[in-house]
Amino acid sequence: MEKNQENLRVLRHSASHIMAQAVQSLFPQAKLAIGPATDTGFYYDFDLTDGYAFTQDDLVKIEDKIKEILKQTLTFEKYEVKDVDAKIAEFKSQGEIYKAELLEEHRNDNPTLYLTKDKDGNVLFNDLCAGPHLPSTSYMKANAIKLLKVAGAYWRGNEKNKMLQRIYATAFWNKEDLADYLNFLEEAEKRDHRKLGTQLDLFSVREEIGGGLVLWHPNLYTVREEIENYWRSEHRKRGYVIVQTPQLAKSKLWEISGHIDHYKENMFFIQKDNEDDEQYIVKPMNCPFHILIYQSQRHSYRSLPLRMAELGTVYRREKSGALSGLTRVQGFTQDDAHIFCTPEQLVDEINAIIDFVADTMKIFKMDFEVELSTRPESYVGDLKNWELAEAGLKEAMDKRGMQYEINEGDGAFYGPKIDFKVKDALGRTWQCATIQLDFNLPERFNIKYQDKDGQMKTPVMLHRVIFGSMERFHGILIEHYAGAFPAWIAPTQVAIVPISTDKHMDYAEELYKKMRNLGIRVLLDDRSESMNYKIRENLQDKKVPYVCVVGDKEIEANSVAVRKRGVGQIGVLTVDEFIEKLQKEIETKGNEEIQKENQ
Amino acid sequence: MEKNQENLRVLRHSASHIMAQAVQSLFPQAKLAIGPATDTGFYYDFDLTDGYAFTQDDLVKIEDKIKEILKQTLTFEKYEVKDVDAKIAEFKSQGEIYKAELLEEHRNDNPTLYLTKDKDGNVLFNDLCAGPHLPSTSYMKANAIKLLKVAGAYWRGNEKNKMLQRIYATAFWNKEDLADYLNFLEEAEKRDHRKLGTQLDLFSVREEIGGGLVLWHPNLYTVREEIENYWRSEHRKRGYVIVQTPQLAKSKLWEISGHIDHYKENMFFIQKDNEDDEQYIVKPMNCPFHILIYQSQRHSYRSLPLRMAELGTVYRREKSGALSGLTRVQGFTQDDAHIFCTPEQLVDEINAIIDFVADTMKIFKMDFEVELSTRPESYVGDLKNWELAEAGLKEAMDKRGMQYEINEGDGAFYGPKIDFKVKDALGRTWQCATIQLDFNLPERFNIKYQDKDGQMKTPVMLHRVIFGSMERFHGILIEHYAGAFPAWIAPTQVAIVPISTDKHMDYAEELYKKMRNLGIRVLLDDRSESMNYKIRENLQDKKVPYVCVVGDKEIEANSVAVRKRGVGQIGVLTVDEFIEKLQKEIETKGNEEIQKENQ
Repeated sequence: MEKNQENLRVLRHSASHIMAQAVQSLFPQAKLAIGPATDTGFYYDFDLTDGYAFTQDDLVKIEDKIKEILKQTLTFEKYEVKDVDAKIAEFKSQGEIYKAELLEEHRNDNPTLYLTKDKDGNVLFNDLCAGPHLPSTSYMKANAIKLLKVAGAYWRGNEKNKMLQRIYATAFWNKEDLADYLNFLEEAEKRDHRKLGTQLDLFSVREEIGGGLVLWHPNLYTVREEIENYWRSEHRKRGYVIVQTPQLAKSKLWEISGHIDHYKENMFFIQKDNEDDEQYIVKPMNCPFHILIYQSQRHSYRSLPLRMAELGTVYRREKSGALSGLTRVQGFTQDDAHIFCTPEQLVDEINAIIDFVADTMKIFKMDFEVELSTRPESYVGDLKNWELAEAGLKEAMDKRGMQYEINEGDGAFYGPKIDFKVKDALGRTWQCATIQLDFNLPERFNIKYQDKDGQMKTPVMLHRVIFGSMERFHGILIEHYAGAFPAWIAPTQVAIVPISTDKHMDYAEELYKKMRNLGIRVLLDDRSESMNYKIRENLQDKKVPYVCVVGDKEIEANSVAVRKRGVGQIGVLTVDEFIEKLQKEIETKGNEEIQKENQ
Repeated sequence: MEKNQENLRVLRHSASHIMAQAVQSLFPQAKLAIGPATDTGFYYDFDLTDGYAFTQDDLVKIEDKIKEILKQTLTFEKYEVKDVDAKIAEFKSQGEIYKAELLEEHRNDNPTLYLTKDKDGNVLFNDLCAGPHLPSTSYMKANAIKLLKVAGAYWRGNEKNKMLQRIYATAFWNKEDLADYLNFLEEAEKRDHRKLGTQLDLFSVREEIGGGLVLWHPNLYTVREEIENYWRSEHRKRGYVIVQTPQLAKSKLWEISGHIDHYKENMFFIQKDNEDDEQYIVKPMNCPFHILIYQSQRHSYRSLPLRMAELGTVYRREKSGALSGLTRVQGFTQDDAHIFCTPEQLVDEINAIIDFVADTMKIFKMDFEVELSTRPESYVGDLKNWELAEAGLKEAMDKRGMQYEINEGDGAFYGPKIDFKVKDALGRTWQCATIQLDFNLPERFNIKYQDKDGQMKTPVMLHRVIFGSMERFHGILIEHYAGAFPAWIAPTQVAIVPISTDKHMDYAEELYKKMRNLGIRVLLDDRSESMNYKIRENLQDKKVPYVCVVGDKEIEANSVAVRKRGVGQIGVLTVDEFIEKLQKEIETKGNEEIQKENQ
């Protein structure tokens, strides 16, 4: 067994069994649910049956018990369940109702157990489990396993089921890797957009409204407004038209599109007042609307490509347990576009979108990785078209020398796609931009264009997002910048702090009005707090990019003493110099920042 | 009986009886439903029972019959129904089921009939009717009555009832007034936003989506984008913050707000998957969301007024028969704001909103009238607060010397309001801006601020819109401008027409790129049509504000020959001159238009 990155999941899965063994020995009443490895660690769900909830102290005790268990070398052994009924009966007699339920479900999948045995062959723990596992605990280091937290989790993620207790933990091959990861977690925790969301008064999610339905407070809406302005102006430059479509539509639309068959669970249906009423549905997608707008005109090869974009707000029903902050929501605005083109135009269009994604992510100083997902076993459309399309996608990427992974057979049934995973400041990747080909909807809506030869043909349709959703992308941005937004999107760009609120207020106010009239988002901090307190609070707590301190000297010289967030004093500039530099920084979206020049 | 404007309704009501009499004599099978006077004429609904539908020819015949009837002088006579049951029986025996239904409903309202009698006292027509009527037909001129059109109308406006046939007509005191009105109608017809919506490819409403749910096509979205940009930047200048809130919320929110009791019929409820599910509702209003954002922070008198604005898209269920184009819809975006202030700040805030409305309507060259609606009999809140608020509203308007009408007792139960009715180019008035005080929601949500004296007090809350809804306002704008939008909002600002698509294309393309890169919405008309055809089509049919024609002379002088919509040739300008003037026109929103200088 090699101790490499790929085998980390195996290590973690085995660690999960050891943890469950430790829990069982400390809490004999605990029933076992599931305990998988994840990308970053593992967890195990327990039903403590008596209503007891794990405390932080318990996690320490469990960790100690794990250390104790790992003092001896235990082996993990696979065991095929031959008599499923007997095993189910045994689980039930032990009160292991969750295991019994799972085994019942997998009775025809050649179910296996994994047994944890001591050197004498005694079975210390057994779990319904497909494996694989480490050969033995000799590969495991007790000081490289860490229990992280406990949280409620519904059995099978369904809020109608019992709430179990999930212990999150992680494991690495050695304690140094664990330490790195814990540092990363600490940094991530500081950047948690939900925490910063409250701290910086960015957004809220309220009980009275419901999970995953976001209130954008003035601060975060300002960020969004700037980003949406950029988005619209870039789309116009790149030859898109922009539309707006409603959130409700009759079920008829979704019957034509097929969503009502394949997407029903995620759709919000409107109650009918009586049987004869039309069925309305809240839109989960913008595509059918864009197709109707395409249909409202006759098209020829000369009017294509038609690039139609919308900041379209959609709603998708999710289990409340799956919702979190801005990144897992029920209502969100897609920065959506649909491109209708001829097959000959496809490669150019793909290329233009890749440019668009690259140019956009550069502004946010984010790299990205690319994955191509190809034709799955069951698909719609002509095989020939799929092959042409996949070749087109590859050609576009190859021509520009792009690295990309191929996920064979992982495309949607209606077309291949390219996924862009952006990397944030902590190196975490987030799925954002996507280019999705669609052989399905153009057929279903029977849309056409007249080609050079006079024939009516079906256009190629591309779905495309750059940010993905505004909600999610803003969640990522908050974490990427740790809430310290660059000046062009910062909710407040400058705070003016008069040294004395008696003597220097007139000048400060004049300055404030001057900047505000120029469209700079400026705040005049006239509170009767100390100057240093106000400087610190604005730069550090509120993360305002610039603080302009003004006192006697500045009044005399018509200047401002500039403090820069994360840098400190960068010197005294005349008011006009400062404004000019700030405007330049805003205009270039941070490519030319105000530099520290003298002290 | 004076023949004045106020008595026009009486004339029209009497004309409606004469029309019904004419219909009955030509179509004995016709059952009478209702036939009221309106602001602009009158109509009568008939059930022709045999499925026959009135034709345009029938309208001519009915008009002729009216002329014939009016050759003699008939009198209108009131008659009190003493024995209601007997009259109902009589209506039924005559097959007048609609009249029978109405009489049954009004049996306790001292119901009256109006009888149309000839000079011998013979009753030629009788109708259940509260009057008043003209004393006799001697006041009526046959040549000042005009039947306009026929349309389907459900009995009582309810789509579940039978579809009746409604004849629309009008009547004036003399034929000159009628002629003026018919001219006005013709002009209004040309400007009908639904007709122009298709002709200029502005928007559509589609059967697959449903009535009153608008697809904004690229052309009209461009207008909206410019107007929204103006709206946001003006709000920021005037000290508003901007937020964004979701379209769905749990019923709990609407229970607190009270909408679920008072507004249920207009709300779209989400289907629950099962009984335990939370009830979600599509929002019909933005106010409760803004209150939650207000609540997310502590407020003191120092942090007020808080002016919170949103372009908030709401949905309100309407009967499908009531829906029309952009002006009567089920889904619309309000340019909403809520102002939370202290009582002392109220007059200033009202004043600032009136300024905002006046400044905005000036841009669109629209006047407006103002109406103040005061406390109704049943109201919530303190009488003292109502009196203060009404005095405040009056004070704000009086101070600026504004004319306004007072609708005593016509306010909402939760507060007095000011309505602004804008006048379009045809002199028609449209309800747009509103300022509504609210004594109800602040109490219901228990929102507070800390006053100077340290006490926690309830803020005054104002609801306010400037445009009303984006859908409706754009409908009005289309009609106001007859589709010829001023350059700053025109979907296409300039069309470039090369005299020869062979010889002059390079120059035309260069020009096109130059303008496009400057953010001008420019179209290069490279079709192989004649120059004159293209000029005409762009200026007249597509209503593009400017056409730049380019040929040999223009290439040599680096110039453009400019045609202005509605004006014609305005001379040759250098490219830079033209661009500069156009940019100035866009920037000043039309206050400085490109003038005809030389020829």
